[in-house]
Amino acid sequence: MKTVIIGGIAGGLSAASQIKREDPGAQVIILEKSGDVSYAACGMPYNLFYKDKPVEELYALDLDTIRKERGIDYRQNHEVIRIDPVQKEVAVVDLINAREYRESYDYLVYATGNKPIRLSLPGFEDNDVFYFKTLDDTRLVKKIIYEKAPTNALLVGSGYTNLELADVLYNMKIPPVILEKSATILPSFAEEIRAKVLEKIEEKGITLHTNVDIMEKNGTVVSTRAGDFDANMVVVSIGVKPNTELFSAAGGELGVAGAVKVDRFLRTNLPDIFAAGDCAEHYVRQLGRNGYMPLGPAANKQGRLVGSNIVNSKAMKMFYGIDQTAVFKFFDLTVATTGLSERQLGEIGANYVKIHVDTPTRGAFPGGGIMRVLLLLEKGTGLILGGQMIGQDVVAKRLDVIATAIYKQMTVFELAELDLSYSPLYSPVWDPLLIAANKAAKEA
Amino acid sequence: MKTVIIGGIAGGLSAASQIKREDPGAQVIILEKSGDVSYAACGMPYNLFYKDKPVEELYALDLDTIRKERGIDYRQNHEVIRIDPVQKEVAVVDLINAREYRESYDYLVYATGNKPIRLSLPGFEDNDVFYFKTLDDTRLVKKIIYEKAPTNALLVGSGYTNLELADVLYNMKIPPVILEKSATILPSFAEEIRAKVLEKIEEKGITLHTNVDIMEKNGTVVSTRAGDFDANMVVVSIGVKPNTELFSAAGGELGVAGAVKVDRFLRTNLPDIFAAGDCAEHYVRQLGRNGYMPLGPAANKQGRLVGSNIVNSKAMKMFYGIDQTAVFKFFDLTVATTGLSERQLGEIGANYVKIHVDTPTRGAFPGGGIMRVLLLLEKGTGLILGGQMIGQDVVAKRLDVIATAIYKQMTVFELAELDLSYSPLYSPVWDPLLIAANKAAKEA
Repeated sequence: MKTVIIGGIAGGLSAASQIKREDPGAQVIILEKSGDVSYAACGMPYNLFYKDKPVEELYALDLDTIRKERGIDYRQNHEVIRIDPVQKEVAVVDLINAREYRESYDYLVYATGNKPIRLSLPGFEDNDVFYFKTLDDTRLVKKIIYEKAPTNALLVGSGYTNLELADVLYNMKIPPVILEKSATILPSFAEEIRAKVLEKIEEKGITLHTNVDIMEKNGTVVSTRAGDFDANMVVVSIGVKPNTELFSAAGGELGVAGAVKVDRFLRTNLPDIFAAGDCAEHYVRQLGRNGYMPLGPAANKQGRLVGSNIVNSKAMKMFYGIDQTAVFKFFDLTVATTGLSERQLGEIGANYVKIHVDTPTRGAFPGGGIMRVLLLLEKGTGLILGGQMIGQDVVAKRLDVIATAIYKQMTVFELAELDLSYSPLYSPVWDPLLIAANKAAKEA
Repeated sequence: MKTVIIGGIAGGLSAASQIKREDPGAQVIILEKSGDVSYAACGMPYNLFYKDKPVEELYALDLDTIRKERGIDYRQNHEVIRIDPVQKEVAVVDLINAREYRESYDYLVYATGNKPIRLSLPGFEDNDVFYFKTLDDTRLVKKIIYEKAPTNALLVGSGYTNLELADVLYNMKIPPVILEKSATILPSFAEEIRAKVLEKIEEKGITLHTNVDIMEKNGTVVSTRAGDFDANMVVVSIGVKPNTELFSAAGGELGVAGAVKVDRFLRTNLPDIFAAGDCAEHYVRQLGRNGYMPLGPAANKQGRLVGSNIVNSKAMKMFYGIDQTAVFKFFDLTVATTGLSERQLGEIGANYVKIHVDTPTRGAFPGGGIMRVLLLLEKGTGLILGGQMIGQDVVAKRLDVIATAIYKQMTVFELAELDLSYSPLYSPVWDPLLIAANKAAKEA
C-alpha cells in the first residue's frame, strides 16, 4: 500500500506517522513544498523574543527521526503541481533540482494547510509588509526586527495572531498600533470577556483603531479613512483561507468557508483522497455539521484518524469533531473559549442565559491572580453551551473542564457537583468553576 | 426557625451562611469552641514562612462580615458540653466568662470537625511535640521556629500534612527527618507516583525512615526500634479522627471510621440533627456508599447542603458525594489523585488496567516542566476508574479534567476525543491527558 501525502506540517505528518505505526510495511511519501518539517506554528510569535534561538527549534520532529525512526519518505522542497485522480498520480516538482516527476498513489492525503488572506491594496506588496503565517515569514520578521530595529509596528487585523504579536512586540519595545476593519475585536467572545482585553490594551497604552478602512500604503505611510499611520513595519493578519487550488483543479468539492469538503470519515468526493488539517472542514459536534476552525489539535487529530482509516479502510472511524476550544495569551492574561459563541447561539436561535463571575484563582495565598468565568447555558435545562475565561494564573487548563463538560453534555447543576482539586496553592476552596456553576444554577 | 450550629469553621459556617442566604429571617447561632473564625487550614504550613504574616490572614471571613453582613450570631469561645435531643437544647459554656447556659434549637448542625490522633507514648505530652491541626497549633509551631530557631525537626507520619511541612521546613533551613510506621508512604497512590515522591525526597537529602516503631521520647531524644533521633522539635501527624464525643453521648450513631453516620440528606439518627464536614461521613459516588475523607471542599459543600435542607425541609436534596480528589505540593512537584485508588480497586475486586505516561507540560517552549499521568481503567470497557498525576507546572487543574470524566463515567476512548485548549504556552499540541488517553485506549 502506497500513500502520498501533500503537505507535511501538522495533519500530513500525523497521518504519515499513524500509517507507519499501524502498518510498518506501508509506503508513505510526504511531499512538502517548503524547506521545513512539521513545526509548532503557534509558537512563532514567541520565538521573536530570542535573537539567537533559531526558528528551527519550533520543529516538532527532526528530519532524521521522521525518516529513520518513523520510516517516512519525507521530501522537502517538493511541490505537487497537479493531482490526477483518474490515473491516481500526482505531478511533482523537485524545487531544488528543478525536475518534474510523477508519483502514483493508492491513497492520497490532502493536507496543504491554509494561507493568509492578503491585502490587495496599493503598496501592500512591499517587502516591509509581512504575513505572519509560516516559518519563512517568521524568519523575515525576525530579520527586520534584529537588523533594522524598527521603532514601531502597524498590525492590520486584531485576531489572536496579531494580539499575541502586539504583546510580544510591546515587550520588545516596538510599540504596536492595531488597525481593525470591523467595529469591534474578538467577535467570538462575549462583551464581558472582550472588555477585559480592551482594558488591557488601554492599560498598556497600545493604540487600537476599529472601523478602519485602509486605502493604500505609500513608503512607510499607510493611509486610511481614519487618517495616516507611519510605521517601520506592517504585519497583516486579517484571516486565513484554505489551500484548495490543487484539489479544486482536480475536480474536488469544497464546503464551508471554501475548505475541502469532507465526510465524517474525512474522505473527499475524489476516490481514495482524504483531507486533514487546516485545508479541510472540521465537524463541530454541538452544531452537528461541519465548520471551519483551523487549529493545531484538530489538524493532528484529523491527520491521525486519516492515517488510521487508510490502514483500516474496511473499518473506518468517524472524526468525533471539535468543540471549538481555543486559547491565547495577552500580556498577563490568558483568554480562552470553548463551545458555542453568542454569535453562533444567535444564529441557531438558542434560548440561552449568560452569567459571569470574577474570582481569585487561589486561596488566600501569594502568587495567584484574578479571573473571569463566563458560562452560556440553555434556559430551562441548564445545559452548558459555551464557556469563556479570561484572567491570570491557570486559565487554559481550567477551561478544559468546561470543554469536558460540553463534550459530555453536562448541565450547570452537574458542574456544581464536581469534586475539583483543592489546596490554597492551586485554588480557592470553591474553585472559580464551581462559583460560576453555582451562580448559573440559580439562573438556569 | 432557629438553628444552632456546633462548630464554626468550614461545614458550620457554610451551613449558617446558606440558611441566611435562603431565609434571611431565620435565627442562626454558631457556637465555636476556639477563639477563631472559619479559616483555611490547608494554608497553615505555608504561613510558617512568613514571620510577620499573622495566622489570622488564613481567616476565610472576618467576624464583622459574618455577624453584620451575613447576620449570623457567631459566638467564639463558646463550648457545647451536652446535647439534649429530647428537649432540643444544648448546654453551652461561655469560656471567657465561665458561664454556663442552655440554648434551644429547632435544627442542630453538628460540625465539630476532627482532631489529630495523638501518640500516647512516654514523653509525647512534652510541649515541644506538636500536632499541626488548628490555628493554635500553627501559632505554637511558628513561635518555636522564630523564637527558638530549631536546627532540625522530626516529623512523625508521612501523610500530606507532614510532606507539605517537610517541604516548608526544608526551605526554612530546618532539615526534616520523617519517621513512618508503615512500610511505605502515600498508600493511596500507585507506586509509579510514589516513586517520584521518593526520588524527590532523596534528591533533597531528606531522611525518611519507614517501618519505624517509636518507643518513647526523652528530652530531645526520640527512641525507636530503628535507633535514636535527636530533634529540637517534633511534629506528629499520624492521622485524624472525627470529633464525635458530644454526639455519641447524646445517643448519636457513628459510621465509617467512627464518623457521624449520615444519610444522603446529611441527617443523623437524632431528630433534626444534621452533620457536615470533617466529623461526618462522606458519600463516595464510585463506591455507592459512605466513606471518610475529610477535606475542605466536601466540608463546604456538605455545610451548604445542610443549610439548604434545613430551609427546604420538605424538599431536601441528596448530597451528591465526592470523587476523592486531593492534591498537595511537594517542592516543585504537584501530586494529585482522583477517583478510586488501586487499594480500593483491590478491595472491590475490580478488573483494571493501569497505564502511565511521562510528558512535557507545554509545547517546545520555556517555562514548562514534565509530568506523569497515571490512569486506572476498567478492563474491557475502558471506563476511567481513577487518575493520579505528579509533576511540575499545571498539574492540579489538569487533574480536574479526570475528576470531571469520572463524575460523568467517561471512558478513555472518550477522554481521547476531548477538545482541550492548546497553545504552546500552556500545553503540547497533544495535551498530557490526551497522550495518556491514547495509550490507555490501546490497552483497555
